[in-house]
Amino acid sequence: MVFWKLRSRVSREIIAEFIGSFILVTFAIGAGAQLTLSNGQMGNFLSLNIAGGLGLTFGIYFSGGVSGGHLNPAVTLGFCILGKCAWWKWPLYCIAQLAGSFVAAAVQFGIYHDAINHYDGGVRSTYGNTSTAGIFSTFPQEFVSTTNAFFDQVFGTFLLLGCIHAVADEKNMMPPKGVIPIAMGMIVTAIGTCFAFNCGYAINCARDFGPRLFTVIAGWGLEPIRFVI
Amino acid sequence: MVFWKLRSRVSREIIAEFIGSFILVTFAIGAGAQLTLSNGQMGNFLSLNIAGGLGLTFGIYFSGGVSGGHLNPAVTLGFCILGKCAWWKWPLYCIAQLAGSFVAAAVQFGIYHDAINHYDGGVRSTYGNTSTAGIFSTFPQEFVSTTNAFFDQVFGTFLLLGCIHAVADEKNMMPPKGVIPIAMGMIVTAIGTCFAFNCGYAINCARDFGPRLFTVIAGWGLEPIRFVI
Amino acid sequence: MVFWKLRSRVSREIIAEFIGSFILVTFAIGAGAQLTLSNGQMGNFLSLNIAGGLGLTFGIYFSGGVSGGHLNPAVTLGFCILGKCAWWKWPLYCIAQLAGSFVAAAVQFGIYHDAINHYDGGVRSTYGNTSTAGIFSTFPQEFVSTTNAFFDQVFGTFLLLGCIHAVADEKNMMPPKGVIPIAMGMIVTAIGTCFAFNCGYAINCARDFGPRLFTVIAGWGLEPIRFVI
Amino acid sequence: MVFWKLRSRVSREIIAEFIGSFILVTFAIGAGAQLTLSNGQMGNFLSLNIAGGLGLTFGIYFSGGVSGGHLNPAVTLGFCILGKCAWWKWPLYCIAQLAGSFVAAAVQFGIYHDAINHYDGGVRSTYGNTSTAGIFSTFPQEFVSTTNAFFDQVFGTFLLLGCIHAVADEKNMMPPKGVIPIAMGMIVTAIGTCFAFNCGYAINCARDFGPRLFTVIAGWGLEPIRFVI
Repeated sequence: MVFWKLRSRVSREIIAEFIGSFILVTFAIGAGAQLTLSNGQMGNFLSLNIAGGLGLTFGIYFSGGVSGGHLNPAVTLGFCILGKCAWWKWPLYCIAQLAGSFVAAAVQFGIYHDAINHYDGGVRSTYGNTSTAGIFSTFPQEFVSTTNAFFDQVFGTFLLLGCIHAVADEKNMMPPKGVIPIAMGMIVTAIGTCFAFNCGYAINCARDFGPRLFTVIAGWGLEPIRFVI
Repeated sequence: MVFWKLRSRVSREIIAEFIGSFILVTFAIGAGAQLTLSNGQMGNFLSLNIAGGLGLTFGIYFSGGVSGGHLNPAVTLGFCILGKCAWWKWPLYCIAQLAGSFVAAAVQFGIYHDAINHYDGGVRSTYGNTSTAGIFSTFPQEFVSTTNAFFDQVFGTFLLLGCIHAVADEKNMMPPKGVIPIAMGMIVTAIGTCFAFNCGYAINCARDFGPRLFTVIAGWGLEPIRFVI
Repeated sequence: MVFWKLRSRVSREIIAEFIGSFILVTFAIGAGAQLTLSNGQMGNFLSLNIAGGLGLTFGIYFSGGVSGGHLNPAVTLGFCILGKCAWWKWPLYCIAQLAGSFVAAAVQFGIYHDAINHYDGGVRSTYGNTSTAGIFSTFPQEFVSTTNAFFDQVFGTFLLLGCIHAVADEKNMMPPKGVIPIAMGMIVTAIGTCFAFNCGYAINCARDFGPRLFTVIAGWGLEPIRFVI
Repeated sequence: MVFWKLRSRVSREIIAEFIGSFILVTFAIGAGAQLTLSNGQMGNFLSLNIAGGLGLTFGIYFSGGVSGGHLNPAVTLGFCILGKCAWWKWPLYCIAQLAGSFVAAAVQFGIYHDAINHYDGGVRSTYGNTSTAGIFSTFPQEFVSTTNAFFDQVFGTFLLLGCIHAVADEKNMMPPKGVIPIAMGMIVTAIGTCFAFNCGYAINCARDFGPRLFTVIAGWGLEPIRFVI
């Protein structure tokens, strides 16, 4: 009985992480698609960052009450290290987050199918004027060395985790529970406004890798994963 | 007596839906008018999305305490399906929402009457450089197929309903009641930033059809309804 | 004794309205000055609307606990009509609001003195390429008729009052008291995004007339008041 | 025992001010770097102001519960004058704030090292087309006289302090404790939208001087401190 209850609770948590990640990536990719495919007519970089933040906000509104709304392997890892999440859950959460991101990419590919064809003439590419891989995942600037890119990513992830724990810290400023998703979204908006230039703020590896994998399958070839470390 | 009380409560709810929809559409059309008629000098696509979101926010502040602030036939339908709203109220709410949207379009036509004439030289058109029908309702991109447009609209509406129920879910993150209208507005801002490119995010059929009907009557001819399915 | 207490409370209210209006107009004029004088390099129309909204937000944070934070003769009038404010206070509040706006304009003229001289070469003008009167108060578009302008202003003011009462209505959605100034600011942002094109949303006659009066005195001549009805 | 406890509490406060200032300056410099180094492709002045505000928001979420989250020598001074902070703490707080800002500048220099080299070709300069000192600290416009600049800075600082005390005033509108960091961030956004044109809103001397000192050491020479009064 207890076993069943446990499993059922874990199942609900995993489904919550799947749905939350789906929502997060749906908004993140949608904003990129609208900005790129409209040639900047229906968005700018600020709107992209705001949409990315709101993606996390609504991802947490969907999942927060059930799984805590991590939606990011690094965040789950942080909670495991702090003892707030059992270690054996980590791979399960990661798979759910990755799967949610992958499915979101597939759905966005469907939603923007005709627009992508109209934009790139049916030629999927990762680099160049009509490249569309950047809608789904991030690519570093050419002038950024691997060392610089590495520290950029490490710093961005630590900044994200630090801000998340500062906002959620019950002994600190204690925002009302229902306002926390909004504050969490603001973290993503802020990081995107400040640390997207080098490598496109891939601060969430599930959000980045799921769609990247999808692009490889869906016609962009192996180019999108050439940079994955 | 009970009958009277009931009718009077329903009347108040219907008036609330009418006023809330009026406010929502007033801001949505106003933002589009200012952006279009100023040739982008007094707004950009982000400001349009923010104004659309705030339109819902203040529409709910007006009506939320009385009718729940649905302001959208699809939202009312969702509440009916979930058993939170009696089915017989659905057509009444729809009529109120449609009427509020229609009247808002008429008022906006008055407010921006001289500016529209100055912009289009008195020639009302739906397509072309000086078209103004897009201020009132949405039109799909030419390259979007009917199938793609259909799924775009279905997905956008489900995303809207999902986010609304996630935010309002009392067993989840529970935002304070007075903050809910702000979070609801953010949903519209986010969807507009991410899913407006294909068909202009007509996620609210009353908000879209009321003003569309008005344009047909007010001088744009039958063009604006050629695309209605 | 009671008389003294009353007078002292009224004095505090009047000082609060003065300070709140000063803060409101300080941000409103500052945003316009930065946008105009930097030739759009350090702002856009959205940032102007956001700053205008935040001006009201902080004006209410300054004065709300003492006087209610009306900061607008029309708002005070609305509260008088609803019986929430004694009629004899109305002229006192109006004078305080007008004085606060006037002093704010004078201080902003000092803060941006060198920048205005650099921009207009010392020639103060109300119309033309290097006109700077628009920093301080609003001017209607040439193509807007007096009738249209009149209804634009009446509608904008009613929209403002309606939204304010909807947000503050204790029987409706009841935002937490400390969040009300933020929601009130959002009203101004929304109206500025939607209804600034015709006449520049002069929805606050003290905020508009105080600085207008200052420009007449400070070197712009009688041009700025030619349009006052 | 008491002495140890006191010292330990003060130590925690100083560490909190250090970390909070680090976070604040990290976002402020990051936003400037992304805007400048992407030639305005990945940001605009509004996004800079929003990021600056969110920097303060998250700086306070990190430190508010421990030290109050001043993160600014002028703010600490204000609290000392009001008797809410012991005078002997002032120099300690200032050093912590300055050190946090300095370290943040150094880390940002590392994060954007390759991008800065790509932008300026390795030639660090304070003025001219490829100058990068402005990423780290602020410089007044050439046409602003010293007198005007002085009053601009004094006014900006008073406006900041006034708004902070208005928001935090427990007898006024009382925003919920957990929402205060967001309202505080909005103050910075508003001031940056309205009063950045003359001198770049150096309303926080630790935030400005720490990075300025860093640039002098890191290769920009003595140019960045030529203007310091």
